[in-house]
Amino acid sequence: MYTPHFTAETSSGDMVEREFTVAGVPGVLWSPAAGSDRAPLVLMGHGGGNHKKAPAMTGRARHLVTGCGFHVAVIDAPGHGDRPRTAHDEQEIAELYRARAAGEPEGPVVVRYNAHLAEIAVPEWTATLDALQGLPEIGAEGPVGYFGINMGTAIGIPFVAGEPRITAAVFGQHWPDVLAEQAKRITIPIEFDLQWDDEHIPRAAGLALFDAFASKEKTLHANAGRHKELPRFEFDSAVRFFARHLGGAAVTAA
Amino acid sequence: MYTPHFTAETSSGDMVEREFTVAGVPGVLWSPAAGSDRAPLVLMGHGGGNHKKAPAMTGRARHLVTGCGFHVAVIDAPGHGDRPRTAHDEQEIAELYRARAAGEPEGPVVVRYNAHLAEIAVPEWTATLDALQGLPEIGAEGPVGYFGINMGTAIGIPFVAGEPRITAAVFGQHWPDVLAEQAKRITIPIEFDLQWDDEHIPRAAGLALFDAFASKEKTLHANAGRHKELPRFEFDSAVRFFARHLGGAAVTAA
Repeated sequence: MYTPHFTAETSSGDMVEREFTVAGVPGVLWSPAAGSDRAPLVLMGHGGGNHKKAPAMTGRARHLVTGCGFHVAVIDAPGHGDRPRTAHDEQEIAELYRARAAGEPEGPVVVRYNAHLAEIAVPEWTATLDALQGLPEIGAEGPVGYFGINMGTAIGIPFVAGEPRITAAVFGQHWPDVLAEQAKRITIPIEFDLQWDDEHIPRAAGLALFDAFASKEKTLHANAGRHKELPRFEFDSAVRFFARHLGGAAVTAA
Repeated sequence: MYTPHFTAETSSGDMVEREFTVAGVPGVLWSPAAGSDRAPLVLMGHGGGNHKKAPAMTGRARHLVTGCGFHVAVIDAPGHGDRPRTAHDEQEIAELYRARAAGEPEGPVVVRYNAHLAEIAVPEWTATLDALQGLPEIGAEGPVGYFGINMGTAIGIPFVAGEPRITAAVFGQHWPDVLAEQAKRITIPIEFDLQWDDEHIPRAAGLALFDAFASKEKTLHANAGRHKELPRFEFDSAVRFFARHLGGAAVTAA
């Protein structure tokens, strides 16, 4: 049984931030400052080239913690944040930059590299969830959500496909090549973000990945705009999605 | 200049309901009970075979009036609600029932009949908006939204395409055959609902209609499920969309 090893704790307003490691993987857990009652947990996967405490992660965490009373945890993906890059990481990142500079599609590199990272990250997420559910303020019975876009989807889909403790998930913005087969095993409620004018992910590819989920309740949110232009209001929508499915308290007005 | 002729007024809790006619067309206007300050107006188009005070209309109106402080107006479409059916209406409805009974696609009949109704209804909406903007509690300067799914989209797209006073709209669930050309003239923010497993509207047809809008901000909400299974949370989403774009007060938690 894994347990989180807490390495630092800070508090800001009504949110407590605790850094931890589980089996050597660094993570962060945000929790409501008041009360130690059991509350739902949302696991968040960060994007490629990013890390566990990137502004997108802390901003979403604040909404989920202070708006819904949830716990939120993020771990650094392999080769990201406080974790070392391997020679293989360096090689794939160089190949991505080369493809971009040459005006070639980056999909083949991202799909291959993210699938490699997912193989390492999925058991790390399982261990992290084991450890966090051992905390009295989370527990093993409460609902658990997963929220990850881009690389957070490439790691999250195989993780959620094999993890019955996850009961609702928000995914988006990835290719179906590797992930569609795994998405077919997912039956929980899904919200899926897609950029209608994505210059990297062809529209039909994004739609095919959404189509693959076996979930009876699944919602596609497709917005006009390019890959990096996912509107901010989609994060508010994701928060409401988790409030609806994980049974949180009242959500602050968007 | 048209003015609304009010024929009945009732009040229920914090919402006032006034029935009216404009140039003979019957409508209903729901308003906040408290205050006569100017507030945004949302025009709603009802679905085929339905009418201005159907439960879907009154339910959405209550959210917009009491949650956002907006005025909401619906008029009966030609041949619907308190308006007489013509011989042509009877003929098209019989043809729709015949197609359904024969297991034929209903799209061709619905597209043709709704286009006919839109030709009549668009100038009626223009006159209604003229009249309602003459009321001191609405005024000619405030933002105006349009919200209509199904037949409400078939009438709403040509109306909004030619009506610069509408600044945000929610549409959905119709065919592109007639409407796509008109949607290309629309540039305001749009939310568009589509059912991923619609047994009447082919998926590619629904996506083509969403694609046609020229709006820089447009969001597709595609949900798993058949034609009549549009989830209730999409109405909450539409309310938040109008709150965001028409500048309403705080929205009640979904």
